Amino acid sequence: MKRMLLTISYDGTAYHGWQVQPNGITVQETVQNALCGLIGVRPALTGCSRTDAGVHARKFCCHFDCDDKFPEKAFLRGLDSLLPPDIAVRDCAEVPPDFHARYSAKGKTYCYYILNSRCRDPFAARYSWKIEQELDADKMNTFCSGLVGRHDFAAFSSAGRSVEDTVRTVSECTVTRSGDTVILKVTADGFLYNMVRIITGTAVGVSFGKIPPDATRDIINSKNRAAAGDTAPPQGLFLEEIYY
Amino acid sequence: MKRMLLTISYDGTAYHGWQVQPNGITVQETVQNALCGLIGVRPALTGCSRTDAGVHARKFCCHFDCDDKFPEKAFLRGLDSLLPPDIAVRDCAEVPPDFHARYSAKGKTYCYYILNSRCRDPFAARYSWKIEQELDADKMNTFCSGLVGRHDFAAFSSAGRSVEDTVRTVSECTVTRSGDTVILKVTADGFLYNMVRIITGTAVGVSFGKIPPDATRDIINSKNRAAAGDTAPPQGLFLEEIYY
Repeated sequence: MKRMLLTISYDGTAYHGWQVQPNGITVQETVQNALCGLIGVRPALTGCSRTDAGVHARKFCCHFDCDDKFPEKAFLRGLDSLLPPDIAVRDCAEVPPDFHARYSAKGKTYCYYILNSRCRDPFAARYSWKIEQELDADKMNTFCSGLVGRHDFAAFSSAGRSVEDTVRTVSECTVTRSGDTVILKVTADGFLYNMVRIITGTAVGVSFGKIPPDATRDIINSKNRAAAGDTAPPQGLFLEEIYY
Repeated sequence: MKRMLLTISYDGTAYHGWQVQPNGITVQETVQNALCGLIGVRPALTGCSRTDAGVHARKFCCHFDCDDKFPEKAFLRGLDSLLPPDIAVRDCAEVPPDFHARYSAKGKTYCYYILNSRCRDPFAARYSWKIEQELDADKMNTFCSGLVGRHDFAAFSSAGRSVEDTVRTVSECTVTRSGDTVILKVTADGFLYNMVRIITGTAVGVSFGKIPPDATRDIINSKNRAAAGDTAPPQGLFLEEIYY
C-alpha cells in the first residue's frame, strides 16, 4: 500500500460541500466514485477541510491509500477523465504513510470575492457576493488588520463547530479592490466553522457603519458570535492555497 | 414612440446564439420575453451582431422601439429582474430614432481565450478553449500582425455568410499571454461569419508549425477558406466592446 496526495480544484456550485452527507451529492463522494471506477475499490478519502455547500476550491488536497501497482499518471489522466467538468485533478503524488491531508497542513489561504456593482455580472454570479452599495475597502482593512495574530476566534465561528479549541493564528487579513471586485484574503494556521464568511460579513457591516472599524478587539474578546456581523453567502468563498 | 438602446452582457453557454431560431432557445427571444413581461408587448429587437451558439458577450447592444411612457429606470431595474442569471442588463438609454444597433456600430472588439494548460480548470471550462501543447504567443502575434489593415477576409469566413462584401478593416490583432491564459484580441469595423474563430484556429495552427507565421498575406490573397486553419470552438469567444 502507498499513500497518495491528490490535489484537485472544483466549482462548488452544484455540490453540498466536501463531506459525504445524506441529503445531497458532495465533492468527496464524486471523487470517491471516480477513484472506484479507476482502481476497483472505493478508498477512504480524507480532505484538507470541510468546505460548505456552494464554496469553491482552486486548490484542495485529499489523501487516500492504494495498491502500489497504480502509477501517479493513472490518477492524473485516468481519474481526471472520470470526473465531471466542475472537478479537475491538478496533481497526484505519493506521500509518506503518516502524511495527513488535514492534520499535516500548516495553514490555508481563503479569498472571499464581492462584486461591488449596481449591475449583475453573468460571469461572476456563481463566484461572488453582489453588493450594490459602495464598499469602503480602507474601513474594511482597518477592521481586518485587527484580526492578525493569535486570538480566540470563537466570536467568528458558527454554532455547530466540531472543535473545542477556538484559538487560531491569522497571519494575513487584507481587503483589496480591483475595479468592481473587492477581495478579502485571509491566511491562518486553521479556520473555524464559517470563520471567513463571518469575517467577511462583519467587514461589510463595518463598511456600512453598523460596526465601528476599531471594534475588532472587542468582538474577539466577547467570544460571542452575536457580537460579530452576518455570515456572508457561500458562493463568494474560495479555498485558494494549502501549505504543508 | 421612442427608440431605446439596451446594453446587456450574457453567458452564452445555455443559448443557441443571439438570433431567434426554431431549434433552441436564444438570447434574443429570452430578452424579448422579458421585455414583453415588462411593457406588455413583444417588441422587435435588433442586435449589434449575430453571435453563435456558446459565444459570450461582456457587452452586447440591441435596440427596440417603445411607448414614451416607460422610463429608462424601468428597463434597468424591471427588465433585469425578469432576466435569468446568465443575462444581465448593463444600461438602457434613449437614442435618436434613426439609430441602429448593428448599422450604427463603427467597430467591435472580440477576445478569444485559450487555456494553455495540462490541467483542466473548472472555472474556465465554459469560457475558454483548452489546449495542452504549449503555444508560442510570439509566432501567433507575427501571424496576427499581418491581418491588420483593410483586406478581403473571405478566407477567414465560413460558408453560410449572409454578406457579399468581405472586405473589412482590422485595426488591432494581438496575442498576449497571462499565466496559463493566451488571449487573442481583434478590433475591426466589422466581422464576417466565424471570422474570429477562424483567425484563432489559424493562429494556433501557426503556433503548432502547420502554417508558416508569414503566410498571412498568402492566406488573405487566396480568398479561400481552405487556406486558413481550423475554426476554434465557440466557448472561448467573447464580444468585449462595441463602438458607436
